[in-house]
Amino acid sequence: MTPDDLKQLVRTVPDFPAPGILFRDITTLIGHGAGFAASVEHLAERAAAARAESVAGMEARGFIFGAAVAARLGIGFVPVRKPGKLPVATLGIDYALEYGSDRLEIDPSAISSGERVVIVDDLIATGGTALAAAELLRQAGAQVDHALFVIDLPDLAGAQRLRDAGVTVDALMEFAGH
Amino acid sequence: MTPDDLKQLVRTVPDFPAPGILFRDITTLIGHGAGFAASVEHLAERAAAARAESVAGMEARGFIFGAAVAARLGIGFVPVRKPGKLPVATLGIDYALEYGSDRLEIDPSAISSGERVVIVDDLIATGGTALAAAELLRQAGAQVDHALFVIDLPDLAGAQRLRDAGVTVDALMEFAGH
Repeated sequence: MTPDDLKQLVRTVPDFPAPGILFRDITTLIGHGAGFAASVEHLAERAAAARAESVAGMEARGFIFGAAVAARLGIGFVPVRKPGKLPVATLGIDYALEYGSDRLEIDPSAISSGERVVIVDDLIATGGTALAAAELLRQAGAQVDHALFVIDLPDLAGAQRLRDAGVTVDALMEFAGH
Repeated sequence: MTPDDLKQLVRTVPDFPAPGILFRDITTLIGHGAGFAASVEHLAERAAAARAESVAGMEARGFIFGAAVAARLGIGFVPVRKPGKLPVATLGIDYALEYGSDRLEIDPSAISSGERVVIVDDLIATGGTALAAAELLRQAGAQVDHALFVIDLPDLAGAQRLRDAGVTVDALMEFAGH
């Protein structure tokens, strides 16, 4: 299945999580066996081309695609977690959201110095979470040059923010609007 | 790598999340490329033997193994989510924890009537979450006869609770104690 085929499997839900937002929902894509496997295959090809040594994914939806890509390539998966989930001393980063702030944490012992870590997530919107993850992984010693997404919302300019931080961005599909 | 090899990759962290608890941490297993791929392969073989038509995984760590197994087999993945995450009308279940309660939600349209759904999670302890997930998936029309785990803590008897509910339980490894 091509990325254009896969785009047909994404469900659009109006007014979630707030009025006026068109939520691009990957539940229907991952529920489609051939569609999910093809999505993982496309992402894995691009991660391999970026010479990924491991994949990082952000809790929780990022685990779905990121872990599958890592298993497909036989490389490690680094979970980027919400606060308080990891049982060890963590490295963390606080970052701003539209309202308030959030925090991401990793186990720094999961990263070797200079390791090429590719970020995989389902969707990039404003890019705040992905940017924070890239910064956090770099603080742990990773080389973070590539981030892969199933969906890019280019009007929200998150991909551009990542590029400005030196991260090459690629996505299987784009949706116009918010 | 055999399940015995994989067991060596699980890190034990004392006194997390509470004093006296030995936390069996899969971060080190999934961070090991060959170990993670072999774990997924072992789980996928068992899911295929159970004639899985889709895999369900519980947020958040269950997404890591569950989604990778589904992608490996080319079947759909059903995310069993924490409340308020899914953008559509959900089916939910409340269940008791040691202190307080929690809730799981699914998109019921992700399940066909009679579909054989295999639950995959990283660890079974008292089995409360897996039991609630099985009941919820059954309410949505799924046939839930098998649950697969990377780690079973048999002293906490969760696997027995699932068996009492008609779910066959299999795990790649066991750890004695809590």
